[in-house]
Amino acid sequence: MDIKSYLSEKKSLVEAHMCKSIGDKDIPETLRRAMQYSLDAGGKRIRPVLVMAGAEAVGGDAQSVLPVAVAMEMIHTFSLIHDDLPCMDDDDLRRGRPTCHKVYGEALALLAGDALLTLAFSWLASAHDCTAAQRARLVCVAARAAGSQGMVGGQVADLEATGQAPDEQRLAFVHTHKTGDLITASLQAGGIAGNGTDGQIAALAALGEQLGLAFQYVDDILDCTADAETLGKTPGKDTAAGKLTAVAVYGLEGARERATAHTAAAHAVLKARNWQNTLLGALAEYVTARTS
Amino acid sequence: MDIKSYLSEKKSLVEAHMCKSIGDKDIPETLRRAMQYSLDAGGKRIRPVLVMAGAEAVGGDAQSVLPVAVAMEMIHTFSLIHDDLPCMDDDDLRRGRPTCHKVYGEALALLAGDALLTLAFSWLASAHDCTAAQRARLVCVAARAAGSQGMVGGQVADLEATGQAPDEQRLAFVHTHKTGDLITASLQAGGIAGNGTDGQIAALAALGEQLGLAFQYVDDILDCTADAETLGKTPGKDTAAGKLTAVAVYGLEGARERATAHTAAAHAVLKARNWQNTLLGALAEYVTARTS
Repeated sequence: MDIKSYLSEKKSLVEAHMCKSIGDKDIPETLRRAMQYSLDAGGKRIRPVLVMAGAEAVGGDAQSVLPVAVAMEMIHTFSLIHDDLPCMDDDDLRRGRPTCHKVYGEALALLAGDALLTLAFSWLASAHDCTAAQRARLVCVAARAAGSQGMVGGQVADLEATGQAPDEQRLAFVHTHKTGDLITASLQAGGIAGNGTDGQIAALAALGEQLGLAFQYVDDILDCTADAETLGKTPGKDTAAGKLTAVAVYGLEGARERATAHTAAAHAVLKARNWQNTLLGALAEYVTARTS
Repeated sequence: MDIKSYLSEKKSLVEAHMCKSIGDKDIPETLRRAMQYSLDAGGKRIRPVLVMAGAEAVGGDAQSVLPVAVAMEMIHTFSLIHDDLPCMDDDDLRRGRPTCHKVYGEALALLAGDALLTLAFSWLASAHDCTAAQRARLVCVAARAAGSQGMVGGQVADLEATGQAPDEQRLAFVHTHKTGDLITASLQAGGIAGNGTDGQIAALAALGEQLGLAFQYVDDILDCTADAETLGKTPGKDTAAGKLTAVAVYGLEGARERATAHTAAAHAVLKARNWQNTLLGALAEYVTARTS
């Protein structure tokens, strides 16, 4: 199977499973709709695909880790809803659709985000093909990646860096935590739920760290170089908003060199585990070589 | 030991443990401060005390369930921070101190709430004196109580009921989910972490449901009858804001009758388990007979 078919097949699996994820018992209808609206917003579903690819790399089954994959997408979706709120990035559109708070109002968007974050932990703690030890470990890994030492901490650092002089250390912190940690946690979670050994799970984490950084460098480069049509969103937005980006710190060439270096480091991890010819290898290629 | 000493001793234990709970490694300093500010805001610490009392009722040790108790207070604190935000209740003061967003700004308050909710799950999933099965179960119980089928769902129903005609069914939904579920989950969590039997844990849940309802009826009654000094906050605020309250639905006498009925039901559960002379019995008395 080539990477495009793999991605599209796994994306369909995730989306089919996600439809059933919220339930309806005892949930106010507007809240259910606001949660579903944001989950349905599409995107590449990179994080759940990484969960499934991580599970397959350690000999596990993609289908049986679906609840874990969906949970990681819920955490990602929660972060997008809160990120778009007026007190944060104040975005009206996401992937061409009105953002959650534009459709449902700020209060409901805030609560839909809270509910999706909470639901993710509920799914991880009850993932049916996992042992209790795996379930507790999945919650720990996801919570660390999502919270004050992970994504939320990265968002705070990103907010505080906006409008400040470009700074290498700050950039590394934002890149690692704001985007990288959840990518790393997705691969780790796949390894854990797929019954990987500790060595395999550590290798998946190391791969995730490099991929996350490469992904973020590519993102910063594209914001400067791609046209709106290729990118699917307004280019130059981060720079215009005074955001700290890799291009601001290292220049375009420097950022490209670093993207290449992290991609190479990711491939070194793949090679050491003999994973370079698996779909995980193709996925690493895809994540880092993307143009949008 | 009398109930006042018990409460004050347990409150001190929780607050001492909470100081160490956030940590500082890899957390932006402002985020850590915003989280700590809200955790430090005081209050009666009813939920963590219920965790400890629940554990003791089933023969467990209050000290060893402290991480679980602190986690429940983190979930409660997250909900207060988000509740106070301008897009929600827009409160400037809580317990006489400026609310989190008044001190740290809206973005940081939003993220501090997100971080505390996430940290709670991390603590539950790694509670050191629990087995993996207990830890996974604690996450499930807390997530259900906090999320779309619990507290968050109750908040949505509460928002939607504001300004509407008094409605019995809606009131029951708001009372059960907005406040009751986390009180119930705190007792359940104490039973789980304290190695209670399934029968004991179910009895704690039944007790929690009755106590939660009684607590909420008393709250609505006090909003109408207490003076500002006794209450420590402005009385009549809920009524003035057009909130759905028990007094609006049943009148003052009807609300009092229902508070008494739920208190009696709570005592029936205590009696059936022979818990009426334990500190759990005294705590039930305290929660329902309070004047502020």
